[in-house]
Amino acid sequence: MKKTQIDLNSDMGEGFGPWTIGDGVDEQLMPLISSANIATGFHAGDPNIMRKTVGMARQHGVGIGAHPGLRDRQGFGRRHIDAPAHELLHDMLYQLGALREFARLEGLALQHIKPHGALYMHVARDEALALALVEALQRIDPGLYLYCMDGSTVHRVAQALGQPVVREFYADRDYDQSGSMVFTRRVAALDPERVARKVARACTEGLVHTVEGRDISVAFDSVCIHSDTPGALDLLRATRRALDEKQIRVVGANMLALA
Amino acid sequence: MKKTQIDLNSDMGEGFGPWTIGDGVDEQLMPLISSANIATGFHAGDPNIMRKTVGMARQHGVGIGAHPGLRDRQGFGRRHIDAPAHELLHDMLYQLGALREFARLEGLALQHIKPHGALYMHVARDEALALALVEALQRIDPGLYLYCMDGSTVHRVAQALGQPVVREFYADRDYDQSGSMVFTRRVAALDPERVARKVARACTEGLVHTVEGRDISVAFDSVCIHSDTPGALDLLRATRRALDEKQIRVVGANMLALA
Amino acid sequence: MKKTQIDLNSDMGEGFGPWTIGDGVDEQLMPLISSANIATGFHAGDPNIMRKTVGMARQHGVGIGAHPGLRDRQGFGRRHIDAPAHELLHDMLYQLGALREFARLEGLALQHIKPHGALYMHVARDEALALALVEALQRIDPGLYLYCMDGSTVHRVAQALGQPVVREFYADRDYDQSGSMVFTRRVAALDPERVARKVARACTEGLVHTVEGRDISVAFDSVCIHSDTPGALDLLRATRRALDEKQIRVVGANMLALA
Amino acid sequence: MKKTQIDLNSDMGEGFGPWTIGDGVDEQLMPLISSANIATGFHAGDPNIMRKTVGMARQHGVGIGAHPGLRDRQGFGRRHIDAPAHELLHDMLYQLGALREFARLEGLALQHIKPHGALYMHVARDEALALALVEALQRIDPGLYLYCMDGSTVHRVAQALGQPVVREFYADRDYDQSGSMVFTRRVAALDPERVARKVARACTEGLVHTVEGRDISVAFDSVCIHSDTPGALDLLRATRRALDEKQIRVVGANMLALA
Repeated sequence: MKKTQIDLNSDMGEGFGPWTIGDGVDEQLMPLISSANIATGFHAGDPNIMRKTVGMARQHGVGIGAHPGLRDRQGFGRRHIDAPAHELLHDMLYQLGALREFARLEGLALQHIKPHGALYMHVARDEALALALVEALQRIDPGLYLYCMDGSTVHRVAQALGQPVVREFYADRDYDQSGSMVFTRRVAALDPERVARKVARACTEGLVHTVEGRDISVAFDSVCIHSDTPGALDLLRATRRALDEKQIRVVGANMLALA
Repeated sequence: MKKTQIDLNSDMGEGFGPWTIGDGVDEQLMPLISSANIATGFHAGDPNIMRKTVGMARQHGVGIGAHPGLRDRQGFGRRHIDAPAHELLHDMLYQLGALREFARLEGLALQHIKPHGALYMHVARDEALALALVEALQRIDPGLYLYCMDGSTVHRVAQALGQPVVREFYADRDYDQSGSMVFTRRVAALDPERVARKVARACTEGLVHTVEGRDISVAFDSVCIHSDTPGALDLLRATRRALDEKQIRVVGANMLALA
Repeated sequence: MKKTQIDLNSDMGEGFGPWTIGDGVDEQLMPLISSANIATGFHAGDPNIMRKTVGMARQHGVGIGAHPGLRDRQGFGRRHIDAPAHELLHDMLYQLGALREFARLEGLALQHIKPHGALYMHVARDEALALALVEALQRIDPGLYLYCMDGSTVHRVAQALGQPVVREFYADRDYDQSGSMVFTRRVAALDPERVARKVARACTEGLVHTVEGRDISVAFDSVCIHSDTPGALDLLRATRRALDEKQIRVVGANMLALA
Repeated sequence: MKKTQIDLNSDMGEGFGPWTIGDGVDEQLMPLISSANIATGFHAGDPNIMRKTVGMARQHGVGIGAHPGLRDRQGFGRRHIDAPAHELLHDMLYQLGALREFARLEGLALQHIKPHGALYMHVARDEALALALVEALQRIDPGLYLYCMDGSTVHRVAQALGQPVVREFYADRDYDQSGSMVFTRRVAALDPERVARKVARACTEGLVHTVEGRDISVAFDSVCIHSDTPGALDLLRATRRALDEKQIRVVGANMLALA
């Protein structure tokens, strides 16, 4: 069951105007990943940064994904907004199209979409929103990969309707016994070697150690490391080294032989 | 030189959330026009309204255009912002893509782009911005019609680079001897019959009476009536009647035999 | 137990830039009310409208209140945002201060504060936010009236800490058996005479008929009629006539002999 | 003519939500300055940061000033917006009041106001806006210090109407022969010792060396070092040391014996 290849994704372009977030080292992170979730202007990012980030992704052969968020820049899209499904859908499509235009300018196609923060959690749980999103993708871009968690509502809906998915493993978040991530508003700096071992084990054994102290199995196609986690660059470097040692290749979602 | 057909364009979808602007009668205006300039969220409009407006345009066979504005909702995009050309370009591309996604959802292609308000005046005068916009359109969508004024900077640049243009005649604005519109922050209610006669004369004789009291010739492919001009519905109805009387057909930019 | 005087409050200044909401007839509503809840720019309103609305309130001797909302103009502040209490508190204080400055420019003091929409419901239910708000008001302006519903969490907290309150009766909303308003996203046009009779009965008998078909008693100091309810002007006129007939005077919160 | 005391001001609280700008070291800069220009939410800052920054200023006995900017977070308030004077005035008053409320929460009075970026340049040149601002301050807070450049339009207007002013010397900007700052969109890292000598010389001799290579005289009451200049902390430390050596005390505007 050991994986021979894996996608490695990270959120990119999360600045805004002259502001930065996290360590502000997208230029150094980009060569280490295979898929970039590019912020699309509602929770983070702006048109100037989007163009620049698409250009960087192109330069490094990294798959381009839209990372739409809630209309909540103040809260970085991490505060749930109780809006009707069609309003949230339209906000996502608007942002998806905006990024697609910059990809088009570079002669590239979008590889994937990954909702951000509270929106990611919302589609993971809410049937109406998950259905609205997948049905719209089926009409607009039925080959666009949808990033999600194994077993989530949006995962199930996408599989039922035939939208391709990429299931994620979160390297820089803790898991609990239910297989859910343990939510934290601010993530502390992590030990790179510990994160790398966690990823390597998940890739080779399909297991992760939970906060309750037991192992659970995890099913995934891509490893996510957040670029705003303090020390993200060291986490990515250590993870790449660990994957190299295990002879697991890092390739974009487009190149994966997905289940 | 009498025209046998003309495009009739109007700004659509300029509400925001629960707010309306002008008389709020897009549903009634849409059947009367051939091209809709749809607000794309920066100066007016929002994703919900964009989707609804694209749907209405489709229903009435009206050509769909992006109407990007400055990042200035407070000022309705009518206040000049002194930003570098590349920043304004990126803001336009972002909005263009957002609308294109909603058109894609409806299985439609975009017909045109028309910058709004202060941005329209900016591309009409500024060589750097006009060039940046036209060069980007050449890469992204070389068949997309660009609405502009005859003889403006952006008109000249588009012709030089081969981007198709639609030149406009402003039915609800005054002209001065230089051929420029007389800028007014708030447009008063106008006499529909007077506006209709002005349009009919421009279409049949190619002339318009200026505020200085003389006639000048005007070259155009499309007549613009602003939906936020008070009484816009009556202006459009009277104009359509006048065009019918002169046996001038109203057709979208796509259908015009453009110069 | 018949009331001899009552406050009559309405939301004012809910436009934004060139946009209007509801019937856009603040100028006509203002002379009919005794307390104005002035939108403070997050969910509605802007600095230009705030200044104009404060000026109108002064002209008609109407009590001035801050009507802070969530950072959600798209949703008109009616969509719950799951933010920590201190973030919502700071958003309210920011807006309160902004309005206070315009009152100061006119030489006036603020009479009251009334959170808007989803924020109103949040303080009505959430102990942490209610406490944070009332404690801040105690430090900043211990005489500022806090508008709320009888028996709500914020009402209880304000009474415990000594902040003066004004309890409201909602003329244009339905009540259920629990004494809560029946939430509706869009309020339909209402019969003015029916609304007027409902208010008059509540003022004279202290009773309201519920959607379940029975009467419940209501305790209140002020009647609220929303300015964005369609036909708000007719509702206010009919209500004023009904109060006049019952010889109930309409006076601002400052003039009420509050319980 | 050697100064014995000087005010030292810096922009503070210019983050937004989770974003930072410059080196993000307000905590370390605050003890080194005597007056803080606190961003008020339009171009930078937010209510959470404003409260925190007011608290820090209080802790270090630093004078609190409002630093209102244009409604242009994307451009950090550095892009001129061609808006009518009354609109810009209202935007400033709104922000001024918002900060005053947080000062009030801490039991403090505001010391000063300093418009930010393009707004600072606008009041320095535009008679209508300068007059609108000073007249409003005369009504609202006639003792509030207005930061400006010696000889600018707003300086002249303030003197004529009696509003107290604090004239600034820009330690981290170049001067030209006309006495104007040389505008640069991005300021490079500067040599701390060179900046410190420049400040010391201006304080002792009243002279500054221009980009044209000659000396001009400068009149000022306060030295400004921008917190978003790279290496701002080192600039401030070196400047404080140089002032100490010259036995020039750093005191807030309130404590200066202003001309």
